[in-house]
Amino acid sequence: MKCWIHASEIVTGEGIRKKDGIRPLDADMGRIPDGAIVVDTARAKNRIEWVGPTSKLPREYRRLPKKSHIDLEKKSLIMPGMIDAHTHTVFAGDRADEFARRAAGTTYEEIRKEGGGIQKTMRATREASPKSLLQKAISRVEEMSALGVRTVEIKTGYGLDLNSELKCLRVIQQLKKHFSRSAVKGRPEVEIIATYLGAHDVPPERTRAEYLEEILSGHLPFMVQKKLADHCDIFVDQGYFDVRDAEKLLGEAKRLGLGIKIHADELGNTEATAAAVRLGALSADHLLKISDAGIAALAKSQTVGVLLPGTAFYLRAPYAPARRLIDAGARVAIATDFNPGSCMCLSLPMMMTLGALYMGMSRAEIFAAVTYNAARALGISNRKGTLLPNESYDGVVLPIQKFEEMYYRFGWTGLSV
Amino acid sequence: MKCWIHASEIVTGEGIRKKDGIRPLDADMGRIPDGAIVVDTARAKNRIEWVGPTSKLPREYRRLPKKSHIDLEKKSLIMPGMIDAHTHTVFAGDRADEFARRAAGTTYEEIRKEGGGIQKTMRATREASPKSLLQKAISRVEEMSALGVRTVEIKTGYGLDLNSELKCLRVIQQLKKHFSRSAVKGRPEVEIIATYLGAHDVPPERTRAEYLEEILSGHLPFMVQKKLADHCDIFVDQGYFDVRDAEKLLGEAKRLGLGIKIHADELGNTEATAAAVRLGALSADHLLKISDAGIAALAKSQTVGVLLPGTAFYLRAPYAPARRLIDAGARVAIATDFNPGSCMCLSLPMMMTLGALYMGMSRAEIFAAVTYNAARALGISNRKGTLLPNESYDGVVLPIQKFEEMYYRFGWTGLSV
Repeated sequence: MKCWIHASEIVTGEGIRKKDGIRPLDADMGRIPDGAIVVDTARAKNRIEWVGPTSKLPREYRRLPKKSHIDLEKKSLIMPGMIDAHTHTVFAGDRADEFARRAAGTTYEEIRKEGGGIQKTMRATREASPKSLLQKAISRVEEMSALGVRTVEIKTGYGLDLNSELKCLRVIQQLKKHFSRSAVKGRPEVEIIATYLGAHDVPPERTRAEYLEEILSGHLPFMVQKKLADHCDIFVDQGYFDVRDAEKLLGEAKRLGLGIKIHADELGNTEATAAAVRLGALSADHLLKISDAGIAALAKSQTVGVLLPGTAFYLRAPYAPARRLIDAGARVAIATDFNPGSCMCLSLPMMMTLGALYMGMSRAEIFAAVTYNAARALGISNRKGTLLPNESYDGVVLPIQKFEEMYYRFGWTGLSV
Repeated sequence: MKCWIHASEIVTGEGIRKKDGIRPLDADMGRIPDGAIVVDTARAKNRIEWVGPTSKLPREYRRLPKKSHIDLEKKSLIMPGMIDAHTHTVFAGDRADEFARRAAGTTYEEIRKEGGGIQKTMRATREASPKSLLQKAISRVEEMSALGVRTVEIKTGYGLDLNSELKCLRVIQQLKKHFSRSAVKGRPEVEIIATYLGAHDVPPERTRAEYLEEILSGHLPFMVQKKLADHCDIFVDQGYFDVRDAEKLLGEAKRLGLGIKIHADELGNTEATAAAVRLGALSADHLLKISDAGIAALAKSQTVGVLLPGTAFYLRAPYAPARRLIDAGARVAIATDFNPGSCMCLSLPMMMTLGALYMGMSRAEIFAAVTYNAARALGISNRKGTLLPNESYDGVVLPIQKFEEMYYRFGWTGLSV
């Protein structure tokens, strides 16, 4: 069945796809005020047949029976379903106490030394049942999707031993099913991408070398065989893993067919961004402390810089140099980094507000950062991030009139108009 | 009928009431893990009969029939309904474009000079029908209440002529009815407080002196006669009204029986806080640029400092000196300042996160700031802000386990657990 939908604004992202996500300008957004989109729901994956100003809708669609016409009226935006390309959604426990202490001046690193931080969440996650992990994660993805997100990358990394990492990967697989098209009707379809981040920290029972060896010879081959992960990631930073570890692990992950990613240059500069580029990573994430050389390397590459402004906000750290990255020609995405220690926030629009206010990003840059460029960071830009004819429809309808309203509001629950 | 409710934590605020809101400490919060509260719903206004640890619940309540016992189980917090003591909820139009421009470096004052800012919202609000203003405001108060707010102060100040200001005050009166106990069942009761802020800006068709005279001889007596306002407020700042105007207006408002408030020391310092104290104002609000003398005056007074950290965040301005205010002995509240220009945010929990991260406030200070101290800022602390025996129950149930979780999360929609 074909149907056409009228909205107060449709944003297609056409020009951003054409320019391959580099230095997006307002004119690239493909904004269509009073727009219409025609979708063939009989075709596999809801193929888009036409998109443009409603006044120019071809006669063949205008003649469709009344029930095929959905008028969303004045307060409605249709844009590509947003993509949160960096989250740690599967974990148990909370770190609210640590947060209250951090507000009073204790640093993240001090808390880590006392057995807090990732290790605290690791203990809770190891103890948690798969069922309780799944229930929590479902409620979190529902909250994300209520604000317009239709693709969520989820990392493991709170298990830190084979069984616990596998437990988390299986929970992510269950989430994939839960939010897939074939699941309960009426629930928005959310695509879940699974990233294995065993190398998030070193578990207390292992040395770094032992654990890395265990990952290489045990975790990695097993989960590839069982098809439990789409991508592999590693936390390269002072006191965590180093660039050599990344080269070893990601080289092997790539050989096994996984996409690769690096937590790079967050707490300190280790030139991990340049390593990400050398390795052909999909993305280098964080970049708070990226060097000029790192920026230059990223700008010349296909690797996406995934910026996580919520983490800077939450840790009271300087924001990533978004302007310098974009001006240099790097592709930039924005994601939540949702996690219990350094960014307890599920709202991608909140990150867009931070991007505007504290990273000086323009509306086109922000739009690209949560659509096409985020799709590139996940290796799915061939099928996600824009709303154009012959693509599969993966749009989202929001109760606002124009794109800026998404991030002009902050702390928005999506309830009010 | 009597019923008792078990929750994972009940926060009563007992010690904060005893200390009259000054320098609140953790021990003053009245935190009861695994607590129970007994409410007599047959008595007018749901009188609280008992509150304490569930293990100590007196036998007479334990013996009540099963249907009188509500177990909220493990993930539930009961605290005094939160109070948002400073909002501008009734307006039409949006300023999303201005926001995008501000992100690119244009200042709030530059935008004002071009006819943007308050005057842009004034034009839209003047043109809007009472019905459309009411609908928008209802949806906004619903969003606030979804996050635990049960009392909302709403200011006028986007009409700036007699008819438009009266239109907005009547909309606020309709909101009062809509959210009152007698309205539709199942909807949370939200108390609305109406504040007349005709002196928000000078309308383009008047000089400042003319407009002030019109307010004094026209607006004020009329709305007092019609009982349309609870309080009167004035925007004292460079380029708006001055301290003399405030003395004239608020002196008269007080004489007519209204509570008084001042927008003080926000964009620049005008020693408006000291004026608020001299005049016996309920609150002095903003205080980004308060002087040492202002802090000292406030600390010796009954006037509450209402801090609006969302506005500092949104305008990228320095935050109000919360620590210095509290340490000096001033009572401090936190509110959203929800408005279309300098803080497009309905979430009081978001402001609590900012209070913790960017004003260094402790959990007890944050708790007091959205309960008892906020009630004082509205002159209703005799009946709001705590959950204690013989008080009317005005609590809120939230799907979290302990108080810190309210602001440890940010950008929370209230959906996820």
